[in-house]
Amino acid sequence: MIDNKNIARIILPEPTISRLPWYLSYLNLQRSHNVEYVSSTQIAKDINVDASQIAKDLSFLNIKGKTRIGYEVDTLVKELVDFLGFQRKHNAFMIGVGSLGKALIQDSGLMQFGLNIVAGFDVNPALIGTSIGDVPIFSMDELDERQEEFGTEIGILAVPAEHAQDATDTMIACGIQAIWNFTPSRIKASNDIVIQNTSIYAHLAVMYNRLEEKKRMV
Amino acid sequence: MIDNKNIARIILPEPTISRLPWYLSYLNLQRSHNVEYVSSTQIAKDINVDASQIAKDLSFLNIKGKTRIGYEVDTLVKELVDFLGFQRKHNAFMIGVGSLGKALIQDSGLMQFGLNIVAGFDVNPALIGTSIGDVPIFSMDELDERQEEFGTEIGILAVPAEHAQDATDTMIACGIQAIWNFTPSRIKASNDIVIQNTSIYAHLAVMYNRLEEKKRMV
Repeated sequence: MIDNKNIARIILPEPTISRLPWYLSYLNLQRSHNVEYVSSTQIAKDINVDASQIAKDLSFLNIKGKTRIGYEVDTLVKELVDFLGFQRKHNAFMIGVGSLGKALIQDSGLMQFGLNIVAGFDVNPALIGTSIGDVPIFSMDELDERQEEFGTEIGILAVPAEHAQDATDTMIACGIQAIWNFTPSRIKASNDIVIQNTSIYAHLAVMYNRLEEKKRMV
Repeated sequence: MIDNKNIARIILPEPTISRLPWYLSYLNLQRSHNVEYVSSTQIAKDINVDASQIAKDLSFLNIKGKTRIGYEVDTLVKELVDFLGFQRKHNAFMIGVGSLGKALIQDSGLMQFGLNIVAGFDVNPALIGTSIGDVPIFSMDELDERQEEFGTEIGILAVPAEHAQDATDTMIACGIQAIWNFTPSRIKASNDIVIQNTSIYAHLAVMYNRLEEKKRMV
C-alpha cells in the first residue's frame, strides 16, 4: 500500500518543515479566538511570510483550502501536529547534564512537542545516581545497557565542546540514530545518522553582529 | 578613521558568522592539545567543512595564515573571540520566566559567550519579586523603568507562543533593540529591530522528519 502522506513527507524541503511550526503557533492563537477559517493571505499578512509560500508549504499536507474561505483552522491544526510528529512520543537521552543539559531536561516545552527525555548521562560522579525531576542520571559507561532498556533513538548532546565528538561516537556505537547537537562543536558521523545542530551560541554571534552593524548604520 | 575590521564585519554573510563558532570550538580543542599551527586543510578534514570555504570564512578576519604552516592557533582564537563579540558583555532581559526562560537563565554557558541576563520579567504574581540565582524577576509592567536603569539592548523572548507578539511590541516600545525569539511564533517588528529566531521546536520537527525518512529508506 502506498501512503501518500509519507511520500510527501520524504520530499518535504527542510525550510518548509521549519516554517510549519510558525503556522501551527499562529493557528493555535486563532483557534483560541474562535476563528474557524483562515486564508493563506490572512496568515501571510499576520505573520509576514509570503502568501504563495504559505500556500505552497501547506500543499504538502493532506488538506485543501476552500476558495474564498480558506483553511478550516481545527483541521489544519490537527494535520500540522500530526505531520510535525509533535503528538508522538520520542524517547531521548540527554548526554551531558551540566548547565544546559539540566536546563533542557527542565524545559517542559520539549515534552509538549513530543520529546520525552527518559534519562541523562554524565561523567561527573556527583551527578550519577541523582535525578532531575523524574529523569534519572546515569554514568556514561551505562549508555549501552540503558539504550537496550529504553530503545532510545535520539541523543541530545550537551557536553563540553571538547568532548562533543567522543560523546557522539559513543552514542552511535550504542545504536543512537539521531543526534541533537547543542554544543558549539561541529560533529562528524556517517551519513545514516541524523544530525540536527542547534547552535544557540552561533545565533548569539549573529545577533551581536547585526546589533553592531545596526549601530554603525545610524 | 576607517576601521577595516568593522567594515569587514558589515559585509560578513550570516552563514559565515554561523560557522565561525565551529572553528573556535575546534581551535580551543587544538590549543588544549598544545597544537601551535593549523591549516585550513587540517580544519577541513577534522570538522568536515570544505577547506576553501574555511579559508574564505577566515579571510574576513584580521589574520593571515602562513604558507605551508597555516594559522597560529592562539592568534586565531583571539581574533575569533573578539570578532564574535563573545568577550564583550551584552546585557539582556529574559521576557517570560516559565520553563524555558528559567532554564536559559540557569545556563551559565550563555554568560561565557557574552550574554549577561540582568533581569527576568513575567506576568505570574508567584514569580514576581523572586529571583533565579542572582537574576531578579520583575513584573512585565516594570519593563520600561528597568530598561532605563539597565540600558538593556537585548530581549530574550520565552513567553507562551500566543503572547509572543504582544511581548515583542512591549519590548520595542521600551527601547529594546534586538530580540532573541525562542518561541515557536513568528514575530513582526520594523526593519530596524534585530530579530534572531532560535526555533528549537522547529529543529525538533526537522529531526523527527529526517528520522522517519531514514526508517523508510532502510
